[in-house]
Amino acid sequence: MNVTSTSAPVLSPEASAITAPTQFIETRLETYGYRRFGGGAGLPLVFLQHFTGTLDNWDPAVADQLAGGREVVLFESAGVGRSSGDVPTTIAGMTEHLFAFADALGLTQIDLLGFSLGGMVAQQASLERPSLVRRMLLVGTAPKGGEDIMHLEKPELRKILEDPSLSGYQVLVKLFFTSSESSQAAGQAFVTRLGARTQNREPGSGPKVAQAQIAAFRAWEGIEGERFGELRRIAQPCLVVNGMLDTMIPVRNSYILAEHLPNAMLLIYPDAGHGSLFQFPGSFVRQATLFLDS
Amino acid sequence: MNVTSTSAPVLSPEASAITAPTQFIETRLETYGYRRFGGGAGLPLVFLQHFTGTLDNWDPAVADQLAGGREVVLFESAGVGRSSGDVPTTIAGMTEHLFAFADALGLTQIDLLGFSLGGMVAQQASLERPSLVRRMLLVGTAPKGGEDIMHLEKPELRKILEDPSLSGYQVLVKLFFTSSESSQAAGQAFVTRLGARTQNREPGSGPKVAQAQIAAFRAWEGIEGERFGELRRIAQPCLVVNGMLDTMIPVRNSYILAEHLPNAMLLIYPDAGHGSLFQFPGSFVRQATLFLDS
Repeated sequence: MNVTSTSAPVLSPEASAITAPTQFIETRLETYGYRRFGGGAGLPLVFLQHFTGTLDNWDPAVADQLAGGREVVLFESAGVGRSSGDVPTTIAGMTEHLFAFADALGLTQIDLLGFSLGGMVAQQASLERPSLVRRMLLVGTAPKGGEDIMHLEKPELRKILEDPSLSGYQVLVKLFFTSSESSQAAGQAFVTRLGARTQNREPGSGPKVAQAQIAAFRAWEGIEGERFGELRRIAQPCLVVNGMLDTMIPVRNSYILAEHLPNAMLLIYPDAGHGSLFQFPGSFVRQATLFLDS
Repeated sequence: MNVTSTSAPVLSPEASAITAPTQFIETRLETYGYRRFGGGAGLPLVFLQHFTGTLDNWDPAVADQLAGGREVVLFESAGVGRSSGDVPTTIAGMTEHLFAFADALGLTQIDLLGFSLGGMVAQQASLERPSLVRRMLLVGTAPKGGEDIMHLEKPELRKILEDPSLSGYQVLVKLFFTSSESSQAAGQAFVTRLGARTQNREPGSGPKVAQAQIAAFRAWEGIEGERFGELRRIAQPCLVVNGMLDTMIPVRNSYILAEHLPNAMLLIYPDAGHGSLFQFPGSFVRQATLFLDS
């Protein structure tokens, strides 16, 4: 492991998602990789990552702009990238790692940007430890008991995942963006930005990570008690964001979130898929900033 | 009729929704009342009003702020307020009056803010004369063939409309806002702002206006050809806005609009009803400005 530090967190106000060193922190559970940069009046904004994503999957156009007004903390959960341990097979298990991470860094109140899988962890965190979470950006995600969550066996997704002509980030261009010319162009711009980080990158996720996270999605689809009833207990202001044509976690999950969360604004982008925040980074950052600063 | 002018439109850059004179313009169809104020780099933004609303029903907090970047033109269609003629019983009929008005004023390209009934006229106008309409704000409205549009006979609405203790604008506070304390407080602030215009007000709408407009709603609910198919022909960028708890034109109509319009962003406010734009005028104006200026 190329460990930059496990004990003395270094703040890098001049750094960005492209250049911020990967740091490591030992906690009561595991040792987690993270990157921390930016600053300003806002609370630290912790980024919770999507299915199989590592620290390298955060778009600098989103992270760096948001880091202009607050610290951005990219968190890599157990078993992903160079974080130690195994990927939990439940959202609640992943949330325990977020708590161990926040406690070790001394973060007592934060905002969360939870994308896809990360949005589920954000919801769980706000339920289990409401004092920790002030506001949440819930992007391309679903409530507990949601519908059609990350069924990679669906023909339209399998077609992309099994396409031998697609490799590396090109899979993301197809999965996260629509087939329109402008959405595909935005997808190419996104992966070019991801590629701008050339040093100190994380190892990609293998099948073990994917299998555990898929198990967590399946468990999250299960209904316990009153369906969506837990959402009523999430008092935090939320901004729920999605692309209208998301094939991985369809938009009706975002409708359900906004309908049941007591204080959620809903924002849906046209001609956009799962990666709406990366398709419209300028708009997303404006909206997120308005929401976080209001 | 207290007619300020029927022939020489006066621009009132210093005026506002509270003080702008009501002007009148004679056209090939009828003579329409309107108010015109503000200015800036943006296209003129024409406001299309809700069920039984007159020129006096536009919130100065919305109209005046938007008038800071463009001319705002409040339009009173046939048979409403002091505009001549009869209220048409179809949206297409109302749209003819909008065209006659725009032509008489020499407006060849405009943006539209269509609220409720006005949002239906906006959709029809963009279909019939796409060159006239650049962008549309569609607030608390429904597509042709939409669901549960202004059924005032529903128990929750009838209870408000038949409450003898509610008079004047207090009916709007109940109809346009939710029952929460903060929404009701916003409703009272809204009607206080409406009351700030004390001079040169319009006569309120009577049963004849209401009956014709209700007939237009019933016709608009009808399905002709492929349901929602016409929306695919509306190429204009749209911002679709609603309150999550709208009881007059429920939010699923906004979902349908955004799902079928090729280029619509969807924005839904929490704990808000039909009058979401008046409950959150600051946020709405920011969003509308971002949209109109982008």
